[in-house]
Amino acid sequence: MSATPQPVVRRGLLDEVTDRILAHIRDQGLRPGDRLPSNRALSERFLVATPTLREALRRLEATGAVEMRHGSGVYVRADLSRLIMINPNRLRLDGAALLDLLEARELIEPHLAEAAARNASDAQLDELAANLDRAGRALDEDAALHTANMNFHRTLGRLAGNRALAQVLDSLIDLHDQEQRHILTLYADRDHDHHVHLAILAAVRGRMPVKARRLMTEHLRDVRDVVIRALEA
Amino acid sequence: MSATPQPVVRRGLLDEVTDRILAHIRDQGLRPGDRLPSNRALSERFLVATPTLREALRRLEATGAVEMRHGSGVYVRADLSRLIMINPNRLRLDGAALLDLLEARELIEPHLAEAAARNASDAQLDELAANLDRAGRALDEDAALHTANMNFHRTLGRLAGNRALAQVLDSLIDLHDQEQRHILTLYADRDHDHHVHLAILAAVRGRMPVKARRLMTEHLRDVRDVVIRALEA
Repeated sequence: MSATPQPVVRRGLLDEVTDRILAHIRDQGLRPGDRLPSNRALSERFLVATPTLREALRRLEATGAVEMRHGSGVYVRADLSRLIMINPNRLRLDGAALLDLLEARELIEPHLAEAAARNASDAQLDELAANLDRAGRALDEDAALHTANMNFHRTLGRLAGNRALAQVLDSLIDLHDQEQRHILTLYADRDHDHHVHLAILAAVRGRMPVKARRLMTEHLRDVRDVVIRALEA
Repeated sequence: MSATPQPVVRRGLLDEVTDRILAHIRDQGLRPGDRLPSNRALSERFLVATPTLREALRRLEATGAVEMRHGSGVYVRADLSRLIMINPNRLRLDGAALLDLLEARELIEPHLAEAAARNASDAQLDELAANLDRAGRALDEDAALHTANMNFHRTLGRLAGNRALAQVLDSLIDLHDQEQRHILTLYADRDHDHHVHLAILAAVRGRMPVKARRLMTEHLRDVRDVVIRALEA
């Protein structure tokens, strides 16, 4: 409510400070989870007032580059390296949007499963198997099972070797995660889904790209059928 | 450099003000290009100090929801309605990332061309034709031609009827726009590309989904070949 005069931060200056913080993260090779220097140290380095620095950091926080932990400091977030992200201001999804997302996954994921069967290294496939082990041990835990299952899809997507498509898939899953979690917890056959995931893993590990594609196509159609029935219920 | 004490804006308050601005835009049915009330009016409505309001607006600006025009006001941006956006903090693309993006387009756009031939209304196809007319009149103008050509791809993507995939395509094109513009201006055969676009339009308008898919696949392979040659040069 106050109209106290405030130092006006010029747009150009704010852009510049934002860019310099990003350059610092890259030049220093900071990784997700690493802490940035203190606000005071950064202000002195960039010769700007701390409110300006703080505003630049808030902007980077809003766009997923850093995380400001109260009383602890500012940390690099994994999202910094993404090309594509979901809109933090997005509306809640309606049923039609949810089905659009699933249809998009039906186009992309069978392609990724096929490519993973061709391109993934054995070590990567061990990671995928470990993912499924976790899911198998969490069949009675709604939240842990959902996260492990979605990680199976995300990890398989990365093993295909196309960074853009893997990030697209990550974004599609991020977008419908909340709605899917709710629906699948109520309506999915979790034992069946787990066995289908194991069959997809076996096809990828067995270097059977056509089979991996087919199983993924069928699996995602099943998921869509479950969601359609849930939306109708 | 100053260490002047500043009013500390609580995180929770900032989140809340950001959400309330978004709710205001939605509840009032504000469209892209519409102006928000003045900062003073919004501060009074939300019972917050103007610096807090300004910080929330800057956050919304950083995430593409609004645009702050100096001396004019705050305007709604089209990006607000997007589900997926590109990371404003992304690195410059290297050659491998550019090829990943093109491969992603090769998976998605033939599917969209096929769906557009099935689903687009005649009025929508007129819009697409108007797009190509503009490109045809700009064959000698690098920037205008590139924009018109990319709008052809974006518009066709929207006509397929899947909002998620159309936005994925928009993001892929946004991501490589700068690099593509440079390469295609130097290396592409613009008359040939224009005729291929016309052929794709004719297939979509003629309701020939299989042909539309095939022509788009061939076209994007050609584009990739041009980019590969340019990267090697």
